[in-house]
Amino acid sequence: MTLQRWKLLIEYDGSGFFGWQRQELGIISVQGEIERAIADFSGQKVTIHVAGRTDAGVHARGQVAHVDLDLSDRYTGFHIVKAINAHLRDVRVVVVDAAPVPNDFHARFSAINKLYTYRVINRPGVLALDAGHAWMVHRPLDVDAMRAGAMHLLGQHDFTSFRDTECQAKSPIKTLDRLDIDVTPYDQAGGKHIAFHAEARSFLHHQMRNMVGTLVQVGLGRFTPEDVRDMLAARDRSAAGVTAPSDGLYLMRVDYPI
Amino acid sequence: MTLQRWKLLIEYDGSGFFGWQRQELGIISVQGEIERAIADFSGQKVTIHVAGRTDAGVHARGQVAHVDLDLSDRYTGFHIVKAINAHLRDVRVVVVDAAPVPNDFHARFSAINKLYTYRVINRPGVLALDAGHAWMVHRPLDVDAMRAGAMHLLGQHDFTSFRDTECQAKSPIKTLDRLDIDVTPYDQAGGKHIAFHAEARSFLHHQMRNMVGTLVQVGLGRFTPEDVRDMLAARDRSAAGVTAPSDGLYLMRVDYPI
Repeated sequence: MTLQRWKLLIEYDGSGFFGWQRQELGIISVQGEIERAIADFSGQKVTIHVAGRTDAGVHARGQVAHVDLDLSDRYTGFHIVKAINAHLRDVRVVVVDAAPVPNDFHARFSAINKLYTYRVINRPGVLALDAGHAWMVHRPLDVDAMRAGAMHLLGQHDFTSFRDTECQAKSPIKTLDRLDIDVTPYDQAGGKHIAFHAEARSFLHHQMRNMVGTLVQVGLGRFTPEDVRDMLAARDRSAAGVTAPSDGLYLMRVDYPI
Repeated sequence: MTLQRWKLLIEYDGSGFFGWQRQELGIISVQGEIERAIADFSGQKVTIHVAGRTDAGVHARGQVAHVDLDLSDRYTGFHIVKAINAHLRDVRVVVVDAAPVPNDFHARFSAINKLYTYRVINRPGVLALDAGHAWMVHRPLDVDAMRAGAMHLLGQHDFTSFRDTECQAKSPIKTLDRLDIDVTPYDQAGGKHIAFHAEARSFLHHQMRNMVGTLVQVGLGRFTPEDVRDMLAARDRSAAGVTAPSDGLYLMRVDYPI
Protein backbone atom coordinates (compact mmCIF):
# COMPACT_ATOMS: atom_id res chain seq x y z
CA MET A 1 0.00 0.00 0.00
CA THR A 2 1.27 3.45 -0.93
CA LEU A 3 -0.20 6.87 -0.23
CA GLN A 4 -0.36 8.62 -3.60
CA ARG A 5 -1.93 11.91 -4.68
CA TRP A 6 -4.17 11.65 -7.76
CA LYS A 7 -5.42 14.38 -10.07
CA LEU A 8 -8.98 13.64 -11.24
CA LEU A 9 -10.60 15.08 -14.38
CA ILE A 10 -14.36 15.25 -13.81
CA GLU A 11 -17.51 15.92 -15.87
CA TYR A 12 -20.99 16.48 -14.52
CA ASP A 13 -24.45 17.62 -15.44
CA GLY A 14 -25.14 20.20 -12.74
CA SER A 15 -28.92 19.87 -12.97
CA GLY A 16 -28.87 16.77 -10.78
CA PHE A 17 -26.79 18.29 -7.95
CA PHE A 18 -26.98 20.94 -5.26
CA GLY A 19 -23.56 22.12 -6.42
CA TRP A 20 -20.05 20.77 -5.93
CA GLN A 21 -19.64 21.06 -2.16
CA ARG A 22 -20.50 18.24 0.23
CA GLN A 23 -23.42 19.21 2.44
CA GLU A 24 -25.62 17.68 5.11
CA LEU A 25 -26.96 14.18 4.64
CA GLY A 26 -29.60 13.84 1.94
CA ILE A 27 -28.38 16.80 -0.14
CA ILE A 28 -26.79 15.42 -3.32
CA SER A 29 -23.48 17.12 -4.17
CA VAL A 30 -20.79 16.17 -6.69
CA GLN A 31 -18.12 16.05 -3.98
CA GLY A 32 -20.30 13.91 -1.72
CA GLU A 33 -21.07 11.42 -4.50
CA ILE A 34 -17.42 11.00 -5.55
CA GLU A 35 -16.25 10.64 -1.94
CA ARG A 36 -18.96 8.04 -1.36
CA ALA A 37 -17.90 6.15 -4.52
CA ILE A 38 -14.26 6.15 -3.36
CA ALA A 39 -15.30 4.88 0.08
CA ASP A 40 -17.41 2.15 -1.57
CA PHE A 41 -14.53 0.69 -3.58
CA SER A 42 -11.57 1.40 -1.28
CA GLY A 43 -13.05 1.54 2.21
CA GLN A 44 -11.23 4.86 2.67
CA LYS A 45 -12.96 7.96 3.98
CA VAL A 46 -11.29 10.74 2.01
CA THR A 47 -11.78 14.43 1.30
CA ILE A 48 -11.34 15.54 -2.29
CA HIS A 49 -10.12 19.07 -3.07
CA VAL A 50 -11.48 20.82 -6.12
CA ALA A 51 -10.20 23.50 -8.50
CA GLY A 52 -13.46 25.45 -8.67
CA ARG A 53 -16.46 24.92 -6.42
CA THR A 54 -19.50 25.21 -8.67
CA ASP A 55 -22.98 26.27 -7.57
CA ALA A 56 -26.16 24.24 -7.92
CA GLY A 57 -27.05 23.77 -11.59
CA VAL A 58 -23.60 24.66 -12.96
CA HIS A 59 -22.07 22.03 -15.27
CA ALA A 60 -18.49 20.89 -15.75
CA ARG A 61 -16.71 19.44 -18.76
CA GLY A 62 -13.24 19.81 -17.24
CA GLN A 63 -13.41 20.11 -13.45
CA VAL A 64 -10.24 19.04 -11.64
CA ALA A 65 -9.83 17.70 -8.11
CA HIS A 66 -7.10 15.94 -6.15
CA VAL A 67 -7.29 13.18 -3.59
CA ASP A 68 -4.79 11.10 -1.59
CA LEU A 69 -5.43 7.35 -1.82
CA ASP A 70 -3.73 4.50 0.01
CA LEU A 71 -3.90 1.68 -2.53
CA SER A 72 -1.90 -1.26 -3.83
CA ASP A 73 0.92 -0.24 -6.19
CA ARG A 74 -0.85 -2.13 -8.94
CA TYR A 75 -3.58 0.52 -9.18
CA THR A 76 -3.14 2.66 -12.32
CA GLY A 77 -5.14 5.74 -13.23
CA PHE A 78 -7.25 3.50 -15.49
CA HIS A 79 -8.17 1.24 -12.55
CA ILE A 80 -9.10 4.19 -10.35
CA VAL A 81 -11.32 5.72 -13.06
CA LYS A 82 -13.06 2.37 -13.55
CA ALA A 83 -13.52 1.78 -9.82
CA ILE A 84 -14.95 5.22 -9.04
CA ASN A 85 -17.28 5.26 -12.05
CA ALA A 86 -18.56 1.79 -11.22
CA HIS A 87 -19.91 3.30 -8.00
CA LEU A 88 -21.32 6.46 -9.63
CA ARG A 89 -23.89 4.70 -11.79
CA ASP A 90 -27.08 6.52 -10.83
CA VAL A 91 -25.85 10.11 -10.97
CA ARG A 92 -24.73 12.29 -13.86
CA VAL A 93 -21.08 12.62 -12.88
CA VAL A 94 -18.13 10.75 -14.33
CA VAL A 95 -14.40 10.67 -13.66
CA VAL A 96 -12.75 10.93 -17.10
CA ASP A 97 -9.12 10.59 -16.12
CA ALA A 98 -6.89 10.00 -13.07
CA ALA A 99 -3.16 10.75 -13.08
CA PRO A 100 -0.58 10.47 -10.28
CA VAL A 101 0.79 13.87 -9.21
CA PRO A 102 3.43 15.05 -6.70
CA ASN A 103 2.32 15.59 -3.11
CA ASP A 104 2.58 19.36 -3.47
CA PHE A 105 0.06 19.47 -6.32
CA HIS A 106 -3.15 21.22 -5.26
CA ALA A 107 -6.16 21.29 -7.60
CA ARG A 108 -7.07 24.81 -6.52
CA PHE A 109 -3.83 26.51 -5.53
CA SER A 110 -1.65 25.06 -8.33
CA ALA A 111 -4.08 26.17 -11.06
CA ILE A 112 -2.76 28.90 -13.34
CA ASN A 113 -5.78 29.36 -15.63
CA LYS A 114 -9.48 28.48 -15.87
CA LEU A 115 -11.85 28.55 -18.83
CA TYR A 116 -15.58 29.04 -18.24
CA THR A 117 -18.12 28.99 -21.05
CA TYR A 118 -21.63 30.39 -20.69
CA ARG A 119 -24.25 29.35 -23.25
CA VAL A 120 -27.17 31.59 -24.24
CA ILE A 121 -29.81 30.59 -26.79
CA ASN A 122 -31.37 33.68 -28.32
CA ARG A 123 -34.72 33.05 -30.02
CA PRO A 124 -38.44 33.54 -29.37
CA GLY A 125 -39.22 29.85 -28.74
CA VAL A 126 -38.45 27.77 -25.69
CA LEU A 127 -35.85 24.95 -25.55
CA ALA A 128 -36.41 21.25 -26.12
CA LEU A 129 -33.01 19.61 -26.55
CA ASP A 130 -31.03 22.11 -24.44
CA ALA A 131 -33.47 22.69 -21.60
CA GLY A 132 -31.41 22.98 -18.41
CA HIS A 133 -28.20 23.43 -20.42
CA ALA A 134 -28.40 27.04 -21.60
CA TRP A 135 -30.03 30.37 -20.74
CA MET A 136 -33.02 31.07 -22.97
CA VAL A 137 -33.20 34.77 -23.90
CA HIS A 138 -36.28 35.56 -25.97
CA ARG A 139 -35.72 39.16 -27.11
CA PRO A 140 -33.02 39.81 -29.76
CA LEU A 141 -29.53 40.56 -28.41
CA ASP A 142 -27.18 43.14 -29.94
CA VAL A 143 -23.97 41.12 -30.04
CA ASP A 144 -21.78 44.07 -31.10
CA ALA A 145 -22.93 46.02 -28.05
CA MET A 146 -22.21 43.02 -25.79
CA ARG A 147 -18.71 42.71 -27.28
CA ALA A 148 -18.08 46.43 -26.74
CA GLY A 149 -19.24 46.07 -23.13
CA ALA A 150 -17.03 43.01 -22.61
CA MET A 151 -13.92 44.99 -23.65
CA HIS A 152 -14.23 47.09 -20.49
CA LEU A 153 -13.99 43.96 -18.31
CA LEU A 154 -10.72 42.71 -19.79
CA GLY A 155 -7.52 43.14 -17.77
CA GLN A 156 -6.92 43.76 -14.07
CA HIS A 157 -9.79 45.38 -12.18
CA ASP A 158 -11.52 45.58 -8.84
CA PHE A 159 -14.51 43.32 -9.66
CA THR A 160 -16.53 44.18 -6.51
CA SER A 161 -19.55 45.13 -8.68
CA PHE A 162 -19.49 41.68 -10.27
CA ARG A 163 -18.99 39.47 -7.24
CA ASP A 164 -21.60 37.97 -4.99
CA THR A 165 -22.11 39.98 -1.83
CA GLU A 166 -21.28 36.84 0.16
CA CYS A 167 -18.06 36.12 -1.77
CA GLN A 168 -15.29 35.25 0.69
CA ALA A 169 -12.24 35.95 -1.50
CA LYS A 170 -9.65 38.11 0.27
CA SER A 171 -9.26 40.54 -2.63
CA PRO A 172 -11.79 41.68 -5.26
CA ILE A 173 -8.94 42.38 -7.69
CA LYS A 174 -8.72 39.85 -10.53
CA THR A 175 -7.23 39.79 -14.01
CA LEU A 176 -9.57 38.74 -16.80
CA ASP A 177 -7.46 37.50 -19.72
CA ARG A 178 -10.21 36.65 -22.19
CA LEU A 179 -13.89 37.38 -22.69
CA ASP A 180 -14.96 36.35 -26.19
CA ILE A 181 -18.47 36.07 -27.55
CA ASP A 182 -19.02 33.49 -30.32
CA VAL A 183 -22.28 33.48 -32.29
CA THR A 184 -23.46 30.51 -34.36
CA PRO A 185 -26.85 29.57 -35.88
CA TYR A 186 -28.98 27.49 -33.53
CA ASP A 187 -32.01 26.64 -35.65
CA GLN A 188 -33.41 27.27 -39.14
CA ALA A 189 -35.62 30.14 -38.02
CA GLY A 190 -32.89 32.66 -37.12
CA GLY A 191 -32.27 31.46 -33.55
CA LYS A 192 -28.71 32.03 -32.32
CA HIS A 193 -26.33 30.18 -30.01
CA ILE A 194 -24.22 32.73 -28.16
CA ALA A 195 -21.21 31.40 -26.22
CA PHE A 196 -19.29 33.59 -23.75
CA HIS A 197 -15.75 32.28 -23.15
CA ALA A 198 -13.85 33.72 -20.19
CA GLU A 199 -10.34 32.90 -18.96
CA ALA A 200 -8.55 34.02 -15.81
CA ARG A 201 -6.27 32.57 -13.18
CA SER A 202 -9.23 32.69 -10.80
CA PHE A 203 -12.74 34.10 -10.58
CA LEU A 204 -14.76 35.64 -7.76
CA HIS A 205 -17.98 33.97 -6.60
CA HIS A 206 -20.69 34.53 -9.28
CA GLN A 207 -18.27 36.69 -11.30
CA MET A 208 -18.93 34.87 -14.58
CA ARG A 209 -22.70 34.81 -14.09
CA ASN A 210 -22.76 38.49 -13.09
CA MET A 211 -20.64 39.49 -16.09
CA VAL A 212 -22.85 37.52 -18.49
CA GLY A 213 -26.08 38.76 -16.89
CA THR A 214 -24.89 42.35 -17.22
CA LEU A 215 -23.70 41.91 -20.82
CA VAL A 216 -27.04 40.33 -21.79
CA GLN A 217 -28.72 43.45 -20.39
CA VAL A 218 -26.35 45.49 -22.56
CA GLY A 219 -27.43 43.33 -25.51
CA LEU A 220 -31.07 44.09 -24.71
CA GLY A 221 -30.38 47.85 -24.64
CA ARG A 222 -30.97 48.14 -20.89
CA PHE A 223 -27.39 49.42 -20.43
CA THR A 224 -24.86 50.92 -22.86
CA PRO A 225 -21.41 49.32 -23.34
CA GLU A 226 -19.89 52.32 -21.54
CA ASP A 227 -22.12 51.68 -18.52
CA VAL A 228 -20.02 48.55 -17.91
CA ARG A 229 -16.94 50.74 -17.32
CA ASP A 230 -18.88 52.87 -14.85
CA MET A 231 -20.19 49.77 -13.07
CA LEU A 232 -16.63 48.55 -12.49
CA ALA A 233 -15.64 51.98 -11.19
CA ALA A 234 -18.58 52.03 -8.76
CA ARG A 235 -17.23 48.99 -6.81
CA ASP A 236 -20.80 48.22 -5.74
CA ARG A 237 -22.73 45.06 -6.64
CA SER A 238 -25.97 47.02 -6.98
CA ALA A 239 -24.42 49.16 -9.73
CA ALA A 240 -24.13 46.20 -12.15
CA GLY A 241 -26.68 43.90 -13.82
CA VAL A 242 -28.46 40.67 -12.97
CA THR A 243 -26.92 37.28 -12.20
CA ALA A 244 -27.34 34.93 -15.18
CA PRO A 245 -29.00 31.58 -14.32
CA SER A 246 -26.70 28.77 -13.23
CA ASP A 247 -27.70 26.23 -15.89
CA GLY A 248 -25.97 28.01 -18.79
CA LEU A 249 -22.55 27.88 -17.09
CA TYR A 250 -19.84 25.28 -17.77
CA LEU A 251 -16.41 24.94 -16.19
CA MET A 252 -14.55 23.82 -19.31
CA ARG A 253 -10.89 23.52 -18.37
CA VAL A 254 -8.36 24.13 -15.59
CA ASP A 255 -4.69 24.54 -16.55
CA TYR A 256 -1.61 23.70 -14.49
CA PRO A 257 2.09 24.36 -15.09
CA ILE A 258 2.70 20.60 -15.23
CA MET B 1 -61.98 31.99 -40.79
CA THR B 2 -59.73 30.61 -43.53
CA LEU B 3 -58.41 27.11 -44.03
CA GLN B 4 -54.66 27.48 -44.47
CA ARG B 5 -51.86 24.92 -44.71
CA TRP B 6 -48.93 25.61 -42.35
CA LYS B 7 -45.40 24.23 -42.43
CA LEU B 8 -44.08 23.65 -38.91
CA LEU B 9 -40.39 23.44 -37.94
CA ILE B 10 -40.10 21.22 -34.85
CA GLU B 11 -37.42 20.27 -32.30
CA TYR B 12 -37.65 17.51 -29.74
CA ASP B 13 -35.66 15.49 -27.27
CA GLY B 14 -36.60 11.95 -28.24
CA SER B 15 -35.85 10.47 -24.83
CA GLY B 16 -39.23 11.58 -23.50
CA PHE B 17 -41.31 10.08 -26.32
CA PHE B 18 -42.30 6.73 -27.77
CA GLY B 19 -41.39 8.13 -31.17
CA TRP B 20 -43.13 10.52 -33.54
CA GLN B 21 -46.28 8.61 -34.41
CA ARG B 22 -49.53 9.01 -32.47
CA GLN B 23 -50.40 5.77 -30.69
CA GLU B 24 -53.00 4.47 -28.30
CA LEU B 25 -54.04 6.55 -25.31
CA GLY B 26 -51.40 6.88 -22.62
CA ILE B 27 -48.43 6.41 -24.96
CA ILE B 28 -46.68 9.77 -25.32
CA SER B 29 -45.74 10.59 -28.92
CA VAL B 30 -44.54 13.84 -30.50
CA GLN B 31 -47.42 13.84 -32.99
CA GLY B 32 -49.96 13.17 -30.27
CA GLU B 33 -48.65 16.00 -28.07
CA ILE B 34 -48.64 18.59 -30.88
CA GLU B 35 -52.13 17.57 -32.06
CA ARG B 36 -53.36 17.84 -28.47
CA ALA B 37 -51.76 21.29 -28.12
CA ILE B 38 -53.44 22.45 -31.36
CA ALA B 39 -56.80 21.11 -30.16
CA ASP B 40 -56.33 22.89 -26.82
CA PHE B 41 -55.84 26.33 -28.34
CA SER B 42 -58.03 26.08 -31.46
CA GLY B 43 -60.68 23.51 -30.59
CA GLN B 44 -59.80 21.77 -33.88
CA LYS B 45 -59.10 18.08 -34.08
CA VAL B 46 -56.38 17.88 -36.73
CA THR B 47 -53.91 15.37 -38.12
CA ILE B 48 -50.39 16.61 -38.70
CA HIS B 49 -48.26 15.07 -41.46
CA VAL B 50 -44.55 14.71 -40.89
CA ALA B 51 -41.46 14.60 -43.13
CA GLY B 52 -39.75 11.74 -41.30
CA ARG B 53 -41.38 9.52 -38.68
CA THR B 54 -38.74 9.00 -36.00
CA ASP B 55 -38.52 6.02 -33.66
CA ALA B 56 -38.60 6.12 -29.88
CA GLY B 57 -35.50 7.89 -28.52
CA VAL B 58 -34.56 9.61 -31.81
CA HIS B 59 -34.13 13.39 -31.56
CA ALA B 60 -34.94 16.18 -34.00
CA ARG B 61 -33.40 19.59 -34.49
CA GLY B 62 -35.16 20.22 -37.81
CA GLN B 63 -38.24 18.03 -38.18
CA VAL B 64 -40.91 19.39 -40.53
CA ALA B 65 -44.66 18.75 -40.53
CA HIS B 66 -47.69 20.31 -42.17
CA VAL B 67 -51.17 20.90 -40.85
CA ASP B 68 -54.37 22.56 -42.12
CA LEU B 69 -55.85 25.04 -39.66
CA ASP B 70 -59.11 26.98 -39.85
CA LEU B 71 -58.27 30.20 -38.04
CA SER B 72 -58.95 33.92 -38.14
CA ASP B 73 -56.96 35.76 -40.83
CA ARG B 74 -55.20 37.64 -38.07
CA TYR B 75 -53.18 34.57 -37.07
CA THR B 76 -49.56 34.86 -38.23
CA GLY B 77 -46.90 32.15 -37.98
CA PHE B 78 -45.67 33.88 -34.83
CA HIS B 79 -49.09 33.56 -33.18
CA ILE B 80 -49.38 29.88 -34.09
CA VAL B 81 -45.90 29.10 -32.70
CA LYS B 82 -46.77 30.92 -29.47
CA ALA B 83 -50.15 29.22 -29.14
CA ILE B 84 -48.91 25.67 -29.73
CA ASN B 85 -45.86 26.06 -27.46
CA ALA B 86 -48.01 27.50 -24.69
CA HIS B 87 -49.80 24.13 -24.62
CA LEU B 88 -46.61 22.02 -24.86
CA ARG B 89 -45.14 23.15 -21.54
CA ASP B 90 -44.46 19.83 -19.83
CA VAL B 91 -42.85 17.94 -22.69
CA ARG B 92 -39.54 18.38 -24.48
CA VAL B 93 -40.89 19.39 -27.86
CA VAL B 94 -41.12 22.89 -29.31
CA VAL B 95 -42.43 24.40 -32.53
CA VAL B 96 -39.66 26.74 -33.72
CA ASP B 97 -41.37 28.23 -36.77
CA ALA B 98 -44.67 28.18 -38.67
CA ALA B 99 -44.99 29.43 -42.24
CA PRO B 100 -48.02 29.47 -44.60
CA VAL B 101 -47.55 27.13 -47.59
CA PRO B 102 -49.63 26.29 -50.68
CA ASN B 103 -52.23 23.55 -50.35
CA ASP B 104 -50.17 21.15 -52.46
CA PHE B 105 -47.20 21.30 -50.08
CA HIS B 106 -46.66 17.98 -48.32
CA ALA B 107 -44.06 17.68 -45.55
CA ARG B 108 -43.11 14.18 -46.65
CA PHE B 109 -43.74 14.02 -50.39
CA SER B 110 -42.47 17.51 -51.25
CA ALA B 111 -39.13 16.95 -49.46
CA ILE B 112 -36.11 16.78 -51.77
CA ASN B 113 -33.37 16.15 -49.18
CA LYS B 114 -32.89 15.13 -45.56
CA LEU B 115 -29.87 15.45 -43.27
CA TYR B 116 -29.45 13.02 -40.39
CA THR B 117 -26.58 13.27 -37.90
CA TYR B 118 -25.56 10.38 -35.66
CA ARG B 119 -23.36 11.17 -32.62
CA VAL B 120 -20.89 8.66 -31.18
CA ILE B 121 -18.70 9.41 -28.15
CA ASN B 122 -15.59 7.21 -28.24
CA ARG B 123 -13.81 6.92 -24.90
CA PRO B 124 -13.44 4.46 -22.02
CA GLY B 125 -15.60 6.40 -19.56
CA VAL B 126 -19.38 6.70 -19.45
CA LEU B 127 -21.34 9.89 -20.24
CA ALA B 128 -22.52 12.56 -17.84
CA LEU B 129 -23.58 15.59 -19.88
CA ASP B 130 -24.56 13.69 -23.04
CA ALA B 131 -26.26 10.67 -21.50
CA GLY B 132 -29.22 9.82 -23.74
CA HIS B 133 -27.90 12.06 -26.52
CA ALA B 134 -25.11 9.97 -28.06
CA TRP B 135 -23.93 6.38 -28.46
CA MET B 136 -21.14 5.57 -26.02
CA VAL B 137 -18.52 3.31 -27.66
CA HIS B 138 -15.79 2.32 -25.22
CA ARG B 139 -13.17 0.59 -27.39
CA PRO B 140 -11.11 2.76 -29.79
CA LEU B 141 -12.55 3.24 -33.28
CA ASP B 142 -10.45 3.28 -36.46
CA VAL B 143 -11.94 6.32 -38.19
CA ASP B 144 -10.03 5.80 -41.46
CA ALA B 145 -11.49 2.31 -41.75
CA MET B 146 -15.00 3.65 -41.06
CA ARG B 147 -14.53 6.31 -43.77
CA ALA B 148 -13.32 3.68 -46.24
CA GLY B 149 -16.37 1.56 -45.42
CA ALA B 150 -18.70 4.54 -45.80
CA MET B 151 -17.45 5.13 -49.36
CA HIS B 152 -19.10 1.89 -50.47
CA LEU B 153 -22.50 3.13 -49.30
CA LEU B 154 -22.47 6.35 -51.33
CA GLY B 155 -24.57 6.53 -54.48
CA GLN B 156 -27.55 4.51 -55.67
CA HIS B 157 -27.85 1.02 -54.19
CA ASP B 158 -30.30 -1.65 -53.13
CA PHE B 159 -30.13 -1.06 -49.36
CA THR B 160 -32.01 -4.24 -48.36
CA SER B 161 -29.14 -5.27 -46.06
CA PHE B 162 -29.45 -1.96 -44.21
CA ARG B 163 -33.21 -1.68 -43.80
CA ASP B 164 -35.36 -2.99 -41.02
CA THR B 165 -36.99 -6.29 -41.93
CA GLU B 166 -40.37 -4.64 -41.23
CA CYS B 167 -39.67 -1.61 -43.42
CA GLN B 168 -42.71 -0.90 -45.59
CA ALA B 169 -41.08 1.16 -48.35
CA LYS B 170 -42.03 -0.03 -51.84
CA SER B 171 -38.47 -0.11 -53.13
CA PRO B 172 -35.20 -0.80 -51.28
CA ILE B 173 -33.31 1.29 -53.83
CA LYS B 174 -32.14 4.64 -52.48
CA THR B 175 -29.46 7.17 -53.41
CA LEU B 176 -27.14 8.21 -50.59
CA ASP B 177 -25.64 11.59 -51.50
CA ARG B 178 -23.41 12.14 -48.47
CA LEU B 179 -21.93 10.10 -45.62
CA ASP B 180 -19.23 12.13 -43.86
CA ILE B 181 -17.54 11.31 -40.57
CA ASP B 182 -16.30 14.30 -38.52
CA VAL B 183 -14.01 13.74 -35.54
CA THR B 184 -13.45 16.36 -32.84
CA PRO B 185 -11.95 16.17 -29.32
CA TYR B 186 -14.58 15.44 -26.66
CA ASP B 187 -12.59 15.67 -23.43
CA GLN B 188 -9.02 16.32 -22.20
CA ALA B 189 -8.19 12.62 -21.88
CA GLY B 190 -8.26 11.67 -25.56
CA GLY B 191 -12.02 11.03 -25.83
CA LYS B 192 -13.46 11.71 -29.30
CA HIS B 193 -16.77 13.00 -30.62
CA ILE B 194 -17.55 11.25 -33.91
CA ALA B 195 -20.40 12.66 -35.99
CA PHE B 196 -21.83 10.77 -38.98
CA HIS B 197 -23.65 13.11 -41.41
CA ALA B 198 -25.85 11.48 -44.05
CA GLU B 199 -27.96 13.13 -46.76
CA ALA B 200 -30.45 11.58 -49.17
CA ARG B 201 -33.84 12.37 -50.64
CA SER B 202 -35.26 9.67 -48.39
CA PHE B 203 -34.11 6.86 -46.12
CA LEU B 204 -35.41 3.36 -45.43
CA HIS B 205 -36.58 2.41 -41.94
CA HIS B 206 -33.52 2.09 -39.65
CA GLN B 207 -31.21 2.72 -42.62
CA MET B 208 -29.14 5.36 -40.84
CA ARG B 209 -28.88 3.36 -37.60
CA ASN B 210 -27.96 0.18 -39.52
CA MET B 211 -25.30 1.99 -41.57
CA VAL B 212 -23.77 3.57 -38.43
CA GLY B 213 -23.93 0.32 -36.45
CA THR B 214 -22.14 -1.50 -39.25
CA LEU B 215 -19.50 1.22 -39.69
CA VAL B 216 -18.80 1.23 -35.95
CA GLN B 217 -18.18 -2.52 -36.23
CA VAL B 218 -15.79 -1.74 -39.09
CA GLY B 219 -14.10 0.78 -36.79
CA LEU B 220 -13.74 -1.93 -34.12
CA GLY B 221 -12.14 -4.32 -36.64
CA ARG B 222 -15.09 -6.72 -36.62
CA PHE B 223 -15.54 -6.13 -40.39
CA THR B 224 -13.22 -4.76 -43.09
CA PRO B 225 -14.23 -1.72 -45.17
CA GLU B 226 -14.61 -4.04 -48.18
CA ASP B 227 -17.08 -6.18 -46.24
CA VAL B 228 -19.51 -3.26 -46.50
CA ARG B 229 -19.55 -3.63 -50.30
CA ASP B 230 -20.27 -7.34 -49.97
CA MET B 231 -23.03 -6.65 -47.43
CA LEU B 232 -24.78 -4.37 -49.92
CA ALA B 233 -24.46 -7.01 -52.64
CA ALA B 234 -25.95 -9.69 -50.36
CA ARG B 235 -29.32 -7.87 -50.18
CA ASP B 236 -29.94 -9.57 -46.82
CA ARG B 237 -30.33 -7.76 -43.47
CA SER B 238 -28.48 -10.57 -41.68
CA ALA B 239 -25.39 -9.95 -43.84
CA ALA B 240 -24.79 -6.48 -42.34
CA GLY B 241 -23.99 -5.22 -38.83
CA VAL B 242 -25.94 -4.18 -35.76
CA THR B 243 -28.51 -1.41 -35.43
CA ALA B 244 -27.02 1.58 -33.59
CA PRO B 245 -29.05 2.74 -30.54
CA SER B 246 -31.77 5.32 -31.20
CA ASP B 247 -30.52 7.99 -28.80
CA GLY B 248 -27.50 9.02 -30.92
CA LEU B 249 -29.67 9.91 -33.93
CA TYR B 250 -30.84 13.42 -34.87
CA LEU B 251 -33.02 14.52 -37.78
CA MET B 252 -31.22 17.79 -38.51
CA ARG B 253 -32.88 19.29 -41.58
CA VAL B 254 -35.42 18.65 -44.32
CA ASP B 255 -35.10 20.59 -47.58
CA TYR B 256 -37.85 21.64 -50.02
CA PRO B 257 -37.72 23.25 -53.45
CA ILE B 258 -39.54 26.29 -52.05
